[in-house]
Amino acid sequence: MRIAVIGTGNAGRALAGGFRRIGHDVVVGTRDPDATAQREEWAGSDLPLASFGDAATDADLVVNATGGQVSLDALAEVNLDGKVLLDVSNPLDFSEGFPPRLSVADTDSLAEQIQRAHPEARVVKALNTVNGAVMVDPARLPEPTTIFVAGDDPVAREAVRALLVELGWVDIVEFPALEAARGLEMWLPLWVRLMANLGTADFNLRLVR
Amino acid sequence: MRIAVIGTGNAGRALAGGFRRIGHDVVVGTRDPDATAQREEWAGSDLPLASFGDAATDADLVVNATGGQVSLDALAEVNLDGKVLLDVSNPLDFSEGFPPRLSVADTDSLAEQIQRAHPEARVVKALNTVNGAVMVDPARLPEPTTIFVAGDDPVAREAVRALLVELGWVDIVEFPALEAARGLEMWLPLWVRLMANLGTADFNLRLVR
Repeated sequence: MRIAVIGTGNAGRALAGGFRRIGHDVVVGTRDPDATAQREEWAGSDLPLASFGDAATDADLVVNATGGQVSLDALAEVNLDGKVLLDVSNPLDFSEGFPPRLSVADTDSLAEQIQRAHPEARVVKALNTVNGAVMVDPARLPEPTTIFVAGDDPVAREAVRALLVELGWVDIVEFPALEAARGLEMWLPLWVRLMANLGTADFNLRLVR
Repeated sequence: MRIAVIGTGNAGRALAGGFRRIGHDVVVGTRDPDATAQREEWAGSDLPLASFGDAATDADLVVNATGGQVSLDALAEVNLDGKVLLDVSNPLDFSEGFPPRLSVADTDSLAEQIQRAHPEARVVKALNTVNGAVMVDPARLPEPTTIFVAGDDPVAREAVRALLVELGWVDIVEFPALEAARGLEMWLPLWVRLMANLGTADFNLRLVR
């Protein structure tokens, strides 16, 4: 599958490397490919870079791994019509420091904002509840943990679920509505405090039922 | 220890029974003790009922198990000065149906609102992340799970932690600031959607790190 990962932060780099490792054809979308290629964290990488718009052109699946505060702007440059958009972003607003606030919550979510901005896209929220390293390597944690999938389109959810299985996820809880992204994004205020409390981002929840 | 449980809903009844089972002297605070005694779910119970104010008078520890939308009103009738207040409530607003919204979130929490209304109380948030049955019997789940404690006062946190251990909790994650109640309360939007999705309230998260 050809996957366009939009965003070159920790999550984007982890996902691009992870998807390639499991055999996908990956291109990374960034605002300025030449500038990104010069950056220290990109040294030694042979992942192909393209502009936001070009990256998605031939992609079967597009991943939004941009920072939540710039996601709508970045995706405005991408034609997502008919495409599955895996949204891993979070609406974290660090403008007043740590812990961040959420710029949208409770009665709306970033995933739904993206869906409204791209009504022909098939938006699926997943992987936003863990950090980049855990996203692509759930076995790095000492026990199996749980990951969530939320989206309105069953075929798109299934495409994302198949990717998650390839990445090693076993316990996948699926919500049949993108609205559930509100709950997934509102896990972050606890997640960031746990990260500070535990001194690591290497953790996740296991749903025991 | 003498414990006053304020509130007669599912959480209040479960906690009152659970605290008595482990040997504490329990009184349940309700707006109208006579009316509560007549209610079907109170039939056969010999837990002593008292008014909100009377219940707390001689208590070593007070539990707020009232519904989040009425907690501030109910606690206004209780003198909490110097007392440990274990707040298990959640600011769930069902006025527009299910899933509920949060009436306070992100930059404030119900626990902090209670603390501001009772500056001499020692408020500790805990147990709000699970339902009543799990609160008092964590072993009913098939694996050990995680419970959280958040509060500014270390002695009050320790008192609550000791109670949790008596109830059977093993994995207790402590936040040294009541501010973390924001994260604990914001877990609820995911919790309620999981309850609907799983068809049971008998679940909890296990923090894997």
